[in-house]
Amino acid sequence: MDLKALRVNGQRLQSTLEEMAQIGATPAGGVQRLTLSNEDKQARDLFVKWLEELNLEITIDEMGNIFGRRPGKNNSLPPIMSGSHVDSQPKGGRFDGILGVMGPLEVLRTLTENNIETERPIVVVDWTNEEGSRFAPAMMSSGVWAGALERDWIYDRTDINGLRFEDELIRIGYKKDVPCKKSPVHCYYEYHIEQGPILDREGLTIGAPKGILCLHWYDIYLTGEANQVGPTPMEGRHDALCAAAEMILAANELPGRMGGNMVTTVGEIQNGPNSRNIIPDKVHFTVDIRSWDDDLALNAWDLLSADFQTIADRRGCPIKIEETWRVAHSPFDEKLVQRVLDTADELGYSNLYMVSGAGHDASYMNQICPTAMIFVPSLGGRSHVEVESTTWEDCEAGANTLLHAMLKSANES
Amino acid sequence: MDLKALRVNGQRLQSTLEEMAQIGATPAGGVQRLTLSNEDKQARDLFVKWLEELNLEITIDEMGNIFGRRPGKNNSLPPIMSGSHVDSQPKGGRFDGILGVMGPLEVLRTLTENNIETERPIVVVDWTNEEGSRFAPAMMSSGVWAGALERDWIYDRTDINGLRFEDELIRIGYKKDVPCKKSPVHCYYEYHIEQGPILDREGLTIGAPKGILCLHWYDIYLTGEANQVGPTPMEGRHDALCAAAEMILAANELPGRMGGNMVTTVGEIQNGPNSRNIIPDKVHFTVDIRSWDDDLALNAWDLLSADFQTIADRRGCPIKIEETWRVAHSPFDEKLVQRVLDTADELGYSNLYMVSGAGHDASYMNQICPTAMIFVPSLGGRSHVEVESTTWEDCEAGANTLLHAMLKSANES
Repeated sequence: MDLKALRVNGQRLQSTLEEMAQIGATPAGGVQRLTLSNEDKQARDLFVKWLEELNLEITIDEMGNIFGRRPGKNNSLPPIMSGSHVDSQPKGGRFDGILGVMGPLEVLRTLTENNIETERPIVVVDWTNEEGSRFAPAMMSSGVWAGALERDWIYDRTDINGLRFEDELIRIGYKKDVPCKKSPVHCYYEYHIEQGPILDREGLTIGAPKGILCLHWYDIYLTGEANQVGPTPMEGRHDALCAAAEMILAANELPGRMGGNMVTTVGEIQNGPNSRNIIPDKVHFTVDIRSWDDDLALNAWDLLSADFQTIADRRGCPIKIEETWRVAHSPFDEKLVQRVLDTADELGYSNLYMVSGAGHDASYMNQICPTAMIFVPSLGGRSHVEVESTTWEDCEAGANTLLHAMLKSANES
Repeated sequence: MDLKALRVNGQRLQSTLEEMAQIGATPAGGVQRLTLSNEDKQARDLFVKWLEELNLEITIDEMGNIFGRRPGKNNSLPPIMSGSHVDSQPKGGRFDGILGVMGPLEVLRTLTENNIETERPIVVVDWTNEEGSRFAPAMMSSGVWAGALERDWIYDRTDINGLRFEDELIRIGYKKDVPCKKSPVHCYYEYHIEQGPILDREGLTIGAPKGILCLHWYDIYLTGEANQVGPTPMEGRHDALCAAAEMILAANELPGRMGGNMVTTVGEIQNGPNSRNIIPDKVHFTVDIRSWDDDLALNAWDLLSADFQTIADRRGCPIKIEETWRVAHSPFDEKLVQRVLDTADELGYSNLYMVSGAGHDASYMNQICPTAMIFVPSLGGRSHVEVESTTWEDCEAGANTLLHAMLKSANES
C-alpha cells in the first residue's frame, strides 16, 4: 500500500479516549486518576488488555512502567519509543497524558490492521507517576528508567496520608521484577496537549517544541509579629502577609520588567496564624520561574530576591529564602523536531515551532536519546482542570503526525 | 481603718496569677486553655475553690458562667460586678482575661481580710468563652446573659471537630440549672491588659478606654482561571492570588488614606488549588476594619470595596463580597470612666483616656448597666501570643485602681 496515504482511525481514537475518560470520571467532566490509586490500576488494566489484543510483547518493570513492544524486521536495532502517562492531577482533564499513550496505541493498531512492518521495533509506554501530585517529584519513573533518579529513594516517598510509593505499587499489583533501567532507544516521541493557549489562539493544529523551559523553584518564609488587630496601630506593625503581598506583585511584574520570554508564578501560600483578628506572623509562599534562557531566569531571580530583601527589611519581617529546585532548559533533538514540522506540513496541518512550558517524561528521555514532542491545541489554553479540552479533529491530526514521524524513524536503518 | 490607705496584696495577686498560668502552660511561656477544654475545667475548679475560701455565694448558670457574690450591708440594692474570662487563645498569653478575674478576686480577698463591708453586694464573674477561638462567636456567654445572644443557638455551635458547645459544657460539669439571664447591676468594671502598645510606649500605668471601637468584618471571594503555570503566558492570565495581593495592600493603605483613627487588617487567606505549578483560581480573604468613628469606617469601606471591584475587573477575576458582621462603636459610661481616671490620679498612677480596639465582655455588659474598663500596659503591645506580658507592678497598680473604683461604686446608695 501507499504508506503516505496511511491514516489513523480517528473514530477509534476518540472512542478509546472516551472509554478511558470513564475511569475516574468527575461530575464536572474531568478525570481524577491519582497515581497508584484504584483508578490508576483500572486504567492500566485496560491499557494492558488493549496491548494484549495487538499481540504486543508486554513488559512491566519494578516501577510499574508498562511497555508494549511491536517487533520490527530487524530486532537487533534499538526500537523507537513513544508514550506518556495515564495518571492525572486531582480533578484533572481527559487529555493530559492519556492522549500520549492512546495516540501511539492507535498508531500500532493502524500499522497492525494494515499489516505494515517497520525496520525497527516500536515500543509504546505508560510511565508511572508523571504528575507528581500524589507522590512528589513529578516524572518519577521515566526519571528512574533514564538513570536520573534513584529507585529506592522513590520507593520511600510517601503521600499525604503517609502511604509509601512502593507499598501502593504492590497494592495495585504493578510492581514486577524487571529492572527499571534504560536500554538503547533510537528515538522518543511524546504526543501531548499543549497545556497553553498559543496554538488555540493562533488557530494552528500542530506544535513542535524546540525543548522544555528551564524550571526554577523557590520557597520563601516570612516572619512578622502577631498581635490582636484592634488595639495595634498601623504604625509599627510587622504584617508578614502585607510583605508577601508586595512580593507576589513583584514576582508577577518580573517578566514584564525583564523584557524577555519568561513566566513567573506564585501558586502556593500558607498564612499563619490565619485568624481574622490576629496580624499574620508566619507566611510561606512559592515562586516558579520558567524561561528558555537559563541566564535570563537567573538574572531575574537576582533582581527579585533583592527586591524581596528590600521589602522584608522595610516591613521589618525577616525573610528566609530556599532555592528548592533548578532544572536547566532542555533542548530537544533539532532533526527530530524538524521531522515533526515536516511531517505536519506533508499532512497539510498548520504548525508552529515553539517551546514547552511544562515538564514532561520527554525531559528525561531527552537525556538518553533523540527526543521530540507533538503538541495539539488546548481549548482556551486550559489544562490541569476538569474543563481541559481538545477537539477530536485535532486529536486525530496529532495522531497522524505521530504515525508518520514514527514511521520515518522506525524505517531508518 | 482609713479606706484610702487600703491596698491589694500584690504578692498574693502575683502568686495567684502564677498558679493559674500553670494550667495549660505552653513550653514557650504562654497558656492554652481553650474554652470547655480540660484546662478550662481545671482553671474553673481552682477559681471556684478560691471563691469558696472567701465564703462567697457561688452561682453557676446554664452557660457555665461562674458568679461569686459578697453580700453588702443593703442586699436589696443591685450589686456592682467585675470579671472577665479564664479561657485563652490557642497558644495565648498568661494575662489576657485571667487578670480580669483574679484582679477582682484579689479585691474581695483584700476587703475580707480587712473586714470591710460595702453598702452594695459585689459580684466577681468568669464569663464562659470570651475568646471565641474554639466556638465562634466571641463573648458568647456575657452576650447570652445580657440578652443579646440566644442560648439555644449557642448550645448548637460546634468546634472544628464537630463537638457541640452544650455537650462540652456538660462534659466538663459546668452546665447547671440556673437560667443565664440578666438581673439588675449597679455598674460593671472589667480589668484587662491593653493588648496594644500605647501605654507601654508612653510609659503610662493605667488606661481608661472611653469605649470600644466599631468592628466591621468582610469576607472576599475571588475567582481566577487555573492553568498549568509553565505554558501559560503572563498576558491573559487571571491570577486570583495577584488580585488578592493588590487588595491586601489597598486594605493596608486605607487608614493612611482616610487620615482618621482606624485600623484595617487582612488576617486570613485561603488560596486554591494552592499548588506551586497551577495559577490560583479561588481565593478567600477577610477584612477587619475598626474605628471609633462608625461613619469613617463605613466611608472607608465604600472606597475600599470600589477599589476591590476595579482590581477584580482589571484582572478579570470576578469578586464576591460578603458583609459578615458590623458592630457599632460602644461608648462606656462617661462618669464611670472618669471615676477610673480620678481613682488612678488619687493613687498616684499615671493614666490615659484612650479607646479599646479589642472587643470584651464589657461590650455586652455596657448594654445593660454603666460600664468601664481598666487597662494596664502590654509589654511591646503583644497579646494573643505566648510572649504576652505585663509587669507585676502594673498588675498590682491595676488591681488597686479596681479596688478603689469598686469601693466607690459599692458604697453608692
